[in-house]
Amino acid sequence: MTDATHDPARLSWVASANGHAEFPIQNLPFGVFSIAGDRPRGGVAIGDAVFDIGAALELGLFSGTARDAAEAAAGPALNPLLALPASARRALRQRLSDILSVDSDARGNASRLLHDAAACTLHLPANVGDYTDFFAGIHHARKGGQISRPENPLMPNYKYVPVAYHSRASSVRPSGEDVRRPKGQRKLPSEATPTFGACRNLDYELELGVWIGAGNRQDEPIPIGEAAERIAGFCLLNDWSARDIQSWESQPLGPFLGKSFRTTVSPWIVTAEALEPFRIAQPARPDGDPPPLPHLLDAADQAHGAYDIDCDVFLSTPAMRAANAEPYRMCRSNTRELYWTVVQMVAHHASNGCNLRPGDLFGSGTISATDAGGIGCLLEMTFGGRDAITLGNGETRRYLEDDDVVVLQAHCRRPGAVPIGFGECRGRIVPATAA
Amino acid sequence: MTDATHDPARLSWVASANGHAEFPIQNLPFGVFSIAGDRPRGGVAIGDAVFDIGAALELGLFSGTARDAAEAAAGPALNPLLALPASARRALRQRLSDILSVDSDARGNASRLLHDAAACTLHLPANVGDYTDFFAGIHHARKGGQISRPENPLMPNYKYVPVAYHSRASSVRPSGEDVRRPKGQRKLPSEATPTFGACRNLDYELELGVWIGAGNRQDEPIPIGEAAERIAGFCLLNDWSARDIQSWESQPLGPFLGKSFRTTVSPWIVTAEALEPFRIAQPARPDGDPPPLPHLLDAADQAHGAYDIDCDVFLSTPAMRAANAEPYRMCRSNTRELYWTVVQMVAHHASNGCNLRPGDLFGSGTISATDAGGIGCLLEMTFGGRDAITLGNGETRRYLEDDDVVVLQAHCRRPGAVPIGFGECRGRIVPATAA
Repeated sequence: MTDATHDPARLSWVASANGHAEFPIQNLPFGVFSIAGDRPRGGVAIGDAVFDIGAALELGLFSGTARDAAEAAAGPALNPLLALPASARRALRQRLSDILSVDSDARGNASRLLHDAAACTLHLPANVGDYTDFFAGIHHARKGGQISRPENPLMPNYKYVPVAYHSRASSVRPSGEDVRRPKGQRKLPSEATPTFGACRNLDYELELGVWIGAGNRQDEPIPIGEAAERIAGFCLLNDWSARDIQSWESQPLGPFLGKSFRTTVSPWIVTAEALEPFRIAQPARPDGDPPPLPHLLDAADQAHGAYDIDCDVFLSTPAMRAANAEPYRMCRSNTRELYWTVVQMVAHHASNGCNLRPGDLFGSGTISATDAGGIGCLLEMTFGGRDAITLGNGETRRYLEDDDVVVLQAHCRRPGAVPIGFGECRGRIVPATAA
Repeated sequence: MTDATHDPARLSWVASANGHAEFPIQNLPFGVFSIAGDRPRGGVAIGDAVFDIGAALELGLFSGTARDAAEAAAGPALNPLLALPASARRALRQRLSDILSVDSDARGNASRLLHDAAACTLHLPANVGDYTDFFAGIHHARKGGQISRPENPLMPNYKYVPVAYHSRASSVRPSGEDVRRPKGQRKLPSEATPTFGACRNLDYELELGVWIGAGNRQDEPIPIGEAAERIAGFCLLNDWSARDIQSWESQPLGPFLGKSFRTTVSPWIVTAEALEPFRIAQPARPDGDPPPLPHLLDAADQAHGAYDIDCDVFLSTPAMRAANAEPYRMCRSNTRELYWTVVQMVAHHASNGCNLRPGDLFGSGTISATDAGGIGCLLEMTFGGRDAITLGNGETRRYLEDDDVVVLQAHCRRPGAVPIGFGECRGRIVPATAA
């Protein structure tokens, strides 16, 4: 449900916000920033600036529920904000929108409230309790299956179960940090025994990240009708994947070290509220697909539980940078390609009584489309490394090379709504350790 | 390496400790306890009592490194203690041993230092950052494989890779709490489509738990020669498993909701130091097995990196309790059955640069032996539920029924050493929620 915070006519006194491709006043994502070694603290992206929530609190700009929420959002991690009911987060958003709108009298305090985003370090916005990676990109699941199991690409459970696995929380890091090429055990089909060494098939995966808000008590499942309130916000997530390590280790218990060296997220939590104008009906399941089981079926979720978010992958190679060439767009996909909604993921995850906690992170699974330009990882694009792809400058790639830079971006564009974006999710590959 | 803390001649002024089956003065495990609603705080098990570390600090019983470690061990979670170097934990152990020995002059403060263990609530000893479940019980891996993949029971990677998967940290709970039968999607091979409902094949798994101490920085693997110092201590771990949910969901990404509803651990951290007398050589690999790859091979680890710990599973049914019958011993196994050492698990886990953190928890995988009396879960004992087993009182079981109580125990017994135990890891099955 949209409200005054989404009003396309609303402008901000922060001039760079008006018409900003990512952070107009209609977005207002939360994050954690620091300046020049000062302590990390909560902020909101607005145009080319970061709004300092703690400074606004000191100025007395909040009251009531919005004040409580602002206090929860002012610290070095946003878990206290995520723990609040969605109504408190909404109250804070509404007040922030008023503070930052052209009609506000807070603009006189701009120098205290705003920091140049380019001068800020952006941190992980919350401490991740558990990180769960779903597999809701059906085109990725099918294509990946064709490579490893040509006779049976999509498992029989796929259209019943929002398949997922637990992934590694400790190694989730914010955009911008380098990605060290991992070492591990690899065995090519042509090799008799495995060897230990640097990953030879390093890949990215384009995913939507989900930040969980108020959780559930252990043994108390979340009915699907209550799941939407548990979803605080979204980010971009690059599920870096060492394909050679992964394929050797994964039987029978699933991916482990092929993923756990690092996961990169974009640093801003784009709230569920900000994405309201970009909700769409869950695309109809193809003829013959079973309906969701009752615990995964909710009329409101079917009617507007999916999202229309364009997601892009860009690759910048050393040669491109040497030539001052733009990064090459590897992929343009959209979250509407996901087979399961985020609400279904939440309801499924808690259906056995597993307790979700504020700050838990979900990955959607790789968001691939069906067209050649919409594929979210190299594994699929190269058919498991078999077919090299050609970049815009004539270079080729099967997998990532050292010094390659991968940037994920996401933008929401719908008629009648002001476009918003997620900010980038960036990582540069650095060589494996020598030792 | 043993020292004065292991001296079999050493007795405690806590009379119940001398000859105690679990907690003589040679053990001194760390935990977190509370009394009658008071705040949880660090303690040490000694005989039938819990030694209050904070009270001992107030009495000025520590100095130097031992005092620093005692302060780290006095709070509501032991993560600060786990974060210290092993040398600090050893200093604290040595001082605790002196304080509690018959020669100590601290005995005059017994009423302030000791609490009746029966009156204490024992909590989770640390906040679990990430919980990783290994698969190092080769007999379990082979038997489980025979059930689901008779043509290929042990995967080709098994003898090269200490196979593991990420499991769920949020639902790890201490011994004694009830275990709610989970609901989930199940599909028997005879059924055309899955249904959602209460688990019909609920199982336990006997595992050794490992508490990680000082961790590693991201991107900095732990050489195997340094891995032992990262292992703070051990517990028992029951990896409750909903077999019907697990078998339906697990392809291709591994176990998820079939495990994540709950994991139960014994509440005391039995330290690596306490287990020194029970270290043994890694049993020789069978002829024809490949040697570990170099990054998993360490002479000291091969020489004494395994443990001789008897591990038991007891089942108590409502009928047994009504008849005042003793629980039935389902299994007597031993950690020497594990194919990989804990040091190998740590080195493997960090080999890709994944950062381990103090308070991370590992499970060993189900510790099954090869004899019929040494099988650590019902899946194996009943061949996937096909063959009912008969308990001592004539009752039969394929899987756990409501109100069944499962208790894991572990005891170390070696010539020349005072026997020590882990304390119990207990859980009672309660019915699934009605809703």
